[in-house]
Amino acid sequence: MPADRSPPRPPLTVVVGRGLKHAESTHAIHAVIARDDGSLVAWHGDPERPTFPRSAVKAIQALPLLESGAADRYGFTPADLALACSSHSGTPLHVDAVRGMLTKAGIDSDSLECGTHWPFDDASARALARSGAEPCPLHNNCSGKHAGFLATARHLGLDPSGYVAADHPLQARVTRALSEMIGVPMSASNRGIDGCSIPTYKVPLAGLATAFARIGSGAGLPAARAEAFRRLREAVAANPLLIAGLGRFDSRVTASCGGRVFLKSGAEGVLCAAIPAAGLGIALKAEDGASRGVEVVMAELLLRHLPAPTADERSLLTELRAPPLKNWRGTNVGWLGMKVESGL
Amino acid sequence: MPADRSPPRPPLTVVVGRGLKHAESTHAIHAVIARDDGSLVAWHGDPERPTFPRSAVKAIQALPLLESGAADRYGFTPADLALACSSHSGTPLHVDAVRGMLTKAGIDSDSLECGTHWPFDDASARALARSGAEPCPLHNNCSGKHAGFLATARHLGLDPSGYVAADHPLQARVTRALSEMIGVPMSASNRGIDGCSIPTYKVPLAGLATAFARIGSGAGLPAARAEAFRRLREAVAANPLLIAGLGRFDSRVTASCGGRVFLKSGAEGVLCAAIPAAGLGIALKAEDGASRGVEVVMAELLLRHLPAPTADERSLLTELRAPPLKNWRGTNVGWLGMKVESGL
Repeated sequence: MPADRSPPRPPLTVVVGRGLKHAESTHAIHAVIARDDGSLVAWHGDPERPTFPRSAVKAIQALPLLESGAADRYGFTPADLALACSSHSGTPLHVDAVRGMLTKAGIDSDSLECGTHWPFDDASARALARSGAEPCPLHNNCSGKHAGFLATARHLGLDPSGYVAADHPLQARVTRALSEMIGVPMSASNRGIDGCSIPTYKVPLAGLATAFARIGSGAGLPAARAEAFRRLREAVAANPLLIAGLGRFDSRVTASCGGRVFLKSGAEGVLCAAIPAAGLGIALKAEDGASRGVEVVMAELLLRHLPAPTADERSLLTELRAPPLKNWRGTNVGWLGMKVESGL
Repeated sequence: MPADRSPPRPPLTVVVGRGLKHAESTHAIHAVIARDDGSLVAWHGDPERPTFPRSAVKAIQALPLLESGAADRYGFTPADLALACSSHSGTPLHVDAVRGMLTKAGIDSDSLECGTHWPFDDASARALARSGAEPCPLHNNCSGKHAGFLATARHLGLDPSGYVAADHPLQARVTRALSEMIGVPMSASNRGIDGCSIPTYKVPLAGLATAFARIGSGAGLPAARAEAFRRLREAVAANPLLIAGLGRFDSRVTASCGGRVFLKSGAEGVLCAAIPAAGLGIALKAEDGASRGVEVVMAELLLRHLPAPTADERSLLTELRAPPLKNWRGTNVGWLGMKVESGL
């Protein structure tokens, strides 16, 4: 975008408060709101800030799964499609469903190259420990996306080995989809490696906001791609717990707003959303990488930009824009909240 | 401190990198280095930044335990004194030792008012779950400090009930010690509630740096207080795993630097240190509350200010000032590091 159109401004500030009035910490948040024609509605911080979207773009990374015909060939349900876009909590619900995706596509879970970690959900991790078991790659929060990758590779007749590498033909398709949607080239010069070992590419925040506006409305996209995003959005809306997990921001907002908001978080404080009815996309990045900061801003922005929010939507977003902080005895000891800003 | 002596400067910047050269996130760090006479050696950010020290001042909060005679009456060992200053990982080593402190003082663990959480150490939490047990207040990372509080209250003949409240006579002693050491009044107007339910008071960062300089050298303190800090420092130096836990920054630095560095972290990105031989104190606060940022800066500052570091000290601090970031498969995907600044 030309420099005269979107010069940097001061970022938004989220205050982490202690007691009734004391600021203890603050988060600086870059925020861009874009229309699906690529124009910007508003921004704070640097709208061109180079940003690794990390897991925020899983819906784009799932395009080859749908566009290749793999999802239909293996009979993937809306729940399976939601998992392909998810950063899940590793509960038995998630793990069993991802195992089911692999079974449908005739793939062994040993093929997963996402790495292993204990479930993000503490109760599930403790239950797993209590059962005497150890975690496996299915518990990795990205296992649904990787199951989608493997199904696509199998459908296309590709050797799955090393499917996470940037030069594997599967990742070449994923990278092409990202580049087409975000509108910038992706190469070794803007590449990093994500937590689940696939490439992640540093892109301007405004490009992410525009991509999400188009994920929501389909404007300017080939019909098949717009249809693929419609299926993914509806799949996620119908399965809010699968996109993340109980109590988590992404799942709570999705459960409340249904198909009216499509949003996804990424590591290091990335959070993107589409508001299809308004043709808007929102992209947020916490300068310091803290998710608690961008969640507060997203709740605030959705309250302002979601057309005619219902009482339930308003109630949840009002709670999430000013969440209390509790200590180990459950006492309210602090709060988070965005400093009042104009032009949002 | 007079405004003409220590005006705010730009804070230090810690870069969170991805790949070989990409900045993904950054942390802004306020840093003050003070002498034990109260003068400042250097600062970045706002040296007067109002800061809740949280757990960083546990050594000061342990003063009534020593100065009242409670620690000696109940035969507390150096390990017990280290636990009174600790934010421990909740391993069996820590939990058993805190239980031992309570036993020596004839106190039931039901008296603890710190609240309950699962052990910070993941392996200990899973082992606890595997055994079918649930955590209790002994697993709280602050249980050693609270055991010290209860022992002091018992020694003084105080009703222990509600000992965490600001108006309890035990907390009045703790608050007096904090106020004397940090040099500012403490009242309802600068009070918050800490994670373990006791009061925490917002104080200038430079006051914390000066307090730590004096914790280290004893300069300007009554002889009994200087002696109390000497005992606490030696107790921690002899028990580095008890102050935090295996693999944690505080324990690793303490284990390597022995009695030559006394340091303690607090929640929301606070980290303070004393370098007794140099008569210096360091106080750091991450504007965003992230501990990973202040750890990098502390390692950098210790490398610069620790007199004649040994090869072991230099090796560890060099590692900690530029730690790698690994993904779930153990691949190096990033790093942290401080931007080069002068005047430190």
